[in-house]
Amino acid sequence: MNMNRDQPAEGIAPSGAATVGREMHDLITELYPICRSITGDGVRKTLAILRRYIPFEIHEVPTGTKVFDWTVPKEWNIRDAYVKNSKGERVIDFLKSNLHVVSYSRPIRQKMPLAELRQHLFSLPDHPDWVPYRTSYYNDNWGFCVSHRLLESLQDGQYDVCIDSTLTDGHLTYGEYYIKGASEDEVLISCHICHPSLCNDNLSGMALVTQLASYIARISPRYSYRFLLIPGTIGSITWLARNEQQVNRIRHGLVVTCVGDGGRFTYKKSRQGNAEIDRAVIHVLKHSGSEWTAQEFFPFGYDERQYCSPGFDLPVGCLMRSPHGSFPEYHTSADNLSFVRPEHLEKSLAVYRYVIDVLEHNMTYRSLNPKCEPQLGRRGLYQAIGGDSEAAKRQLAMLWVLNLSDGRHSLLEIAERAGYDFETIKAITKTLLQHNLLEESV
Amino acid sequence: MNMNRDQPAEGIAPSGAATVGREMHDLITELYPICRSITGDGVRKTLAILRRYIPFEIHEVPTGTKVFDWTVPKEWNIRDAYVKNSKGERVIDFLKSNLHVVSYSRPIRQKMPLAELRQHLFSLPDHPDWVPYRTSYYNDNWGFCVSHRLLESLQDGQYDVCIDSTLTDGHLTYGEYYIKGASEDEVLISCHICHPSLCNDNLSGMALVTQLASYIARISPRYSYRFLLIPGTIGSITWLARNEQQVNRIRHGLVVTCVGDGGRFTYKKSRQGNAEIDRAVIHVLKHSGSEWTAQEFFPFGYDERQYCSPGFDLPVGCLMRSPHGSFPEYHTSADNLSFVRPEHLEKSLAVYRYVIDVLEHNMTYRSLNPKCEPQLGRRGLYQAIGGDSEAAKRQLAMLWVLNLSDGRHSLLEIAERAGYDFETIKAITKTLLQHNLLEESV
Amino acid sequence: MNMNRDQPAEGIAPSGAATVGREMHDLITELYPICRSITGDGVRKTLAILRRYIPFEIHEVPTGTKVFDWTVPKEWNIRDAYVKNSKGERVIDFLKSNLHVVSYSRPIRQKMPLAELRQHLFSLPDHPDWVPYRTSYYNDNWGFCVSHRLLESLQDGQYDVCIDSTLTDGHLTYGEYYIKGASEDEVLISCHICHPSLCNDNLSGMALVTQLASYIARISPRYSYRFLLIPGTIGSITWLARNEQQVNRIRHGLVVTCVGDGGRFTYKKSRQGNAEIDRAVIHVLKHSGSEWTAQEFFPFGYDERQYCSPGFDLPVGCLMRSPHGSFPEYHTSADNLSFVRPEHLEKSLAVYRYVIDVLEHNMTYRSLNPKCEPQLGRRGLYQAIGGDSEAAKRQLAMLWVLNLSDGRHSLLEIAERAGYDFETIKAITKTLLQHNLLEESV
Repeated sequence: MNMNRDQPAEGIAPSGAATVGREMHDLITELYPICRSITGDGVRKTLAILRRYIPFEIHEVPTGTKVFDWTVPKEWNIRDAYVKNSKGERVIDFLKSNLHVVSYSRPIRQKMPLAELRQHLFSLPDHPDWVPYRTSYYNDNWGFCVSHRLLESLQDGQYDVCIDSTLTDGHLTYGEYYIKGASEDEVLISCHICHPSLCNDNLSGMALVTQLASYIARISPRYSYRFLLIPGTIGSITWLARNEQQVNRIRHGLVVTCVGDGGRFTYKKSRQGNAEIDRAVIHVLKHSGSEWTAQEFFPFGYDERQYCSPGFDLPVGCLMRSPHGSFPEYHTSADNLSFVRPEHLEKSLAVYRYVIDVLEHNMTYRSLNPKCEPQLGRRGLYQAIGGDSEAAKRQLAMLWVLNLSDGRHSLLEIAERAGYDFETIKAITKTLLQHNLLEESV
Repeated sequence: MNMNRDQPAEGIAPSGAATVGREMHDLITELYPICRSITGDGVRKTLAILRRYIPFEIHEVPTGTKVFDWTVPKEWNIRDAYVKNSKGERVIDFLKSNLHVVSYSRPIRQKMPLAELRQHLFSLPDHPDWVPYRTSYYNDNWGFCVSHRLLESLQDGQYDVCIDSTLTDGHLTYGEYYIKGASEDEVLISCHICHPSLCNDNLSGMALVTQLASYIARISPRYSYRFLLIPGTIGSITWLARNEQQVNRIRHGLVVTCVGDGGRFTYKKSRQGNAEIDRAVIHVLKHSGSEWTAQEFFPFGYDERQYCSPGFDLPVGCLMRSPHGSFPEYHTSADNLSFVRPEHLEKSLAVYRYVIDVLEHNMTYRSLNPKCEPQLGRRGLYQAIGGDSEAAKRQLAMLWVLNLSDGRHSLLEIAERAGYDFETIKAITKTLLQHNLLEESV
Repeated sequence: MNMNRDQPAEGIAPSGAATVGREMHDLITELYPICRSITGDGVRKTLAILRRYIPFEIHEVPTGTKVFDWTVPKEWNIRDAYVKNSKGERVIDFLKSNLHVVSYSRPIRQKMPLAELRQHLFSLPDHPDWVPYRTSYYNDNWGFCVSHRLLESLQDGQYDVCIDSTLTDGHLTYGEYYIKGASEDEVLISCHICHPSLCNDNLSGMALVTQLASYIARISPRYSYRFLLIPGTIGSITWLARNEQQVNRIRHGLVVTCVGDGGRFTYKKSRQGNAEIDRAVIHVLKHSGSEWTAQEFFPFGYDERQYCSPGFDLPVGCLMRSPHGSFPEYHTSADNLSFVRPEHLEKSLAVYRYVIDVLEHNMTYRSLNPKCEPQLGRRGLYQAIGGDSEAAKRQLAMLWVLNLSDGRHSLLEIAERAGYDFETIKAITKTLLQHNLLEESV
């Protein structure tokens, strides 16, 4: 029935120009050098740049605040770090790449022999030119990440090790942006901002959220929207702890990450598994013209694991391209500015916008002529059926909407059952409403 | 378990003689020349012939009667129609085939050049020898249908065009036949009678309904049966509008069309999708020894689209051989007396009769010895199980009926779960009832 | 996720020594010569031997007792039986194999010609060296079972036929063993003991039940356990009739038979089809490291057909290796001491024990930190996830248990959804309980 199956639905066809994709990539380029972690000035600097686009509210939560089973940690900041050889040359230099320092490393200033230093060096033997990304949030430790090639080239001798970091009482910082819609029911869009110079995970997510929020701010949405720019795990736990009384307003949600690479789309379903968000995303992916796959929920990954903890069980999925952890560049220096591309970012945004479009318009209607068909001909709505023209397809879609609009089938369900893309069904519903053939079902 | 799977169940095995099929084909041959439309004397003549077999009640509904969103149209009749060339020869002649005139053409008597005439001529370039069937029920228009070969042979010049039709206030005519059964619950059998010289669609349907009604009139059915011989769309809408208060008696229904060709059986399910009629038809087709397929409901096609409109949502499916619209001869002069054949008509009737048999006997029982098995041996009901003899199969079927007769499984459900044909289960149930091992469940 | 899928879960890995399998085979060897039937001293002798291991209670139910639709039959005993040729040689001799006499043969002492004798001789032409096993419980008859080779070698002449049996008022004997657990809810383990010298069907069952009962007697079970050693059909009917008021305590049950051969495991589901016992057994078989298959319930077979009759509908399945009736040796002299092997018996016992383990520990818990994840790190429960080490797998399993412990998922459901074996999930649950992260859900 649906000739669009292998073609992208109109609303998400590529514009060709990739202007928006270019803008997203430019923003990623600007944010790339900043050293972010789960707390600290890197996060503040990042949010400050994003506020040029979106008026995020900035929240500062003090170190030591109890959030459910967790405690907001000390704030970590870093000015410089290096390892110098006996000649005084910086063989490892934080100023060249913030990946070189294990995130949350405690300060250190010490000379030591190579053997001792090596206990604190991390590399990737399988990818000898790449620098890994490592963290040590809740352990008192320090370390450097280096390419395996560099590691192997280090000569015996004394090394001067310096990490000029601070771990002090301070704050956990996150951004929140709320768009009031017609209803208090909310859509949650969540994105982690705690990774340093890593592009796909998750500067791509920040770029996408920025564009998506701008878009929704321009429409008058039916739902209210809440965008969270938070450090992973502790950030979502903190937000949930501070907003426990309001989470019941969340009707749908998505965690945004890894949306800039060229892999096929991957949707990880919510814990509920068949929530409206799950069906909406899968419908959009089916009609995206791109390759895609869906996964059942599992309780590890990014912040969906907190939103989907049993005490909340919110309908929040995670829509990615290549899933985090599944591509070799993940959490390495190879997740860089050339790994993410404008056209992939733009296509990802189009998919997210189509999902929003489905959520916004997925209403349920009742036919005002439920007994037998209405006579479409005298309303000018009847076209010959039989040719495989676009008109005939629209005609059949009209009959589907009229037949299934019994107050028990949403437009998304009608689209799925009839084998049409949501956009077609939405457009036809609009026509039928204009002819007083449908009413909204309450 | 069931050795009959690839063989027809006994009750629908071919008789060999095809006597009934021959009678059905003879009736089609008699009805073939009559010019039917959605109103007019062609319908009346057709019903008069069918009344020789079945005492249909004839209903006449006046032009202008409101029926839901529709209005009964003017009555159309036609005496003659032709196109004469400049030599006065009839190059298109309604008297040779009623397909030549677009149904519901308004009267016209005019001379015109070929160029103007061609605006009103319809042909099938892909099948140059066939004449298409066209209608213009609710548009004020006229036209002729011709073979493409004829169309291409027409020379420039003046043509004398005549359609001696009338479009006047009159009636919509339909036939209805009610057989009172033990229960007021009804089975609806509906068949459209508005097509002119087209055999599979739907003279085959009329022939089958006539035979089926005769058969049911001879048994004492459990259900009441209502047979409708109606013009398509407007006929079912009219009937539903006039009988709105009684449709809740309809427990099962079938729309009969295209039952005379040699294609595999096709069952289009009711909108409910898993109604008893759906399960009964699919069971019978599985055990028919013929090829078959089933389709999910879709809201276009024949009168099932009205019975299955959301305000009624009746359990009415459509049982065909080749589905209308799917074979090249559909709605052309090639759907003629040689396209439908006695043996196909007879097999279709057998399938319909088996469906009726299932509906009539699909009761639910309770074992009178629900705790442990009854001792079959002392009742003479126990035969050695082990050989693959017919007796062993019957023995196992007996255990199935006893085990599943708990008031929650109908005989059809037992047949399906145990992998037997309904006939076997029905026969065994009769034996068990005779031995006081079951009681009907109320 | 689960690396154990093709390997047996730890708890049912073979011990190597097969000591228990050897014990089971020794018991079978001891029981093999006894002539059992549905009543009589053979059953008593068998139970006396089994009581060396398990203190079964012995029940004696008098001939003539009404049990539902059945009546306890006369008791059958036999001392000797033979057919002598004209030279006085025993050509058929009960003392060589009790299979030679049709079970429940009435006494006879008569001379007759071969032609008459042959009416009472049974053999297997397809397996000319095997002796079939035949019964005639509820028909007044007599007969001998012989190899086809012997049958064909018999010369014309007079034969001296003797069956020194008695059919008198007496008792039906069965054994019952009850282990009181923490709950009155019961697990039923049922095994038929009515077959003479047949090893797989069902001396293997008796050997397994003996071991299983010893095992459960050593633990302090949550459930109470009831073991039945009964004659097939009439035994389960008798037990159900006498215990009708208590069967509602039965939560799970298994019929044990054919557990000593080398075929793949076969589980025949209960009539309910998706009862906890069904899911438990299938889970265990999936993780058994052995080939296996599952069958939907059908109302013939062994005593499950009585437990699953519609008036009881108990959750009782049947766990076998090669299903009775499906292997050529079934009910012949070839089902002998070499057909069943210690290693198969031991593996079958391991599977049954794992099933019991699942039932015993299949509780439902609630996370005590349902909102967001608990911080595992500060409890020492957090290990790096990423490598495919055993530790990482346990870590992920921990997250699964915490996420799904919402009072609505049993441990078995968690294991199934997460793709782990039950044992791993059980072990992790124990750890989580020790850390006060879970509570039992009531």
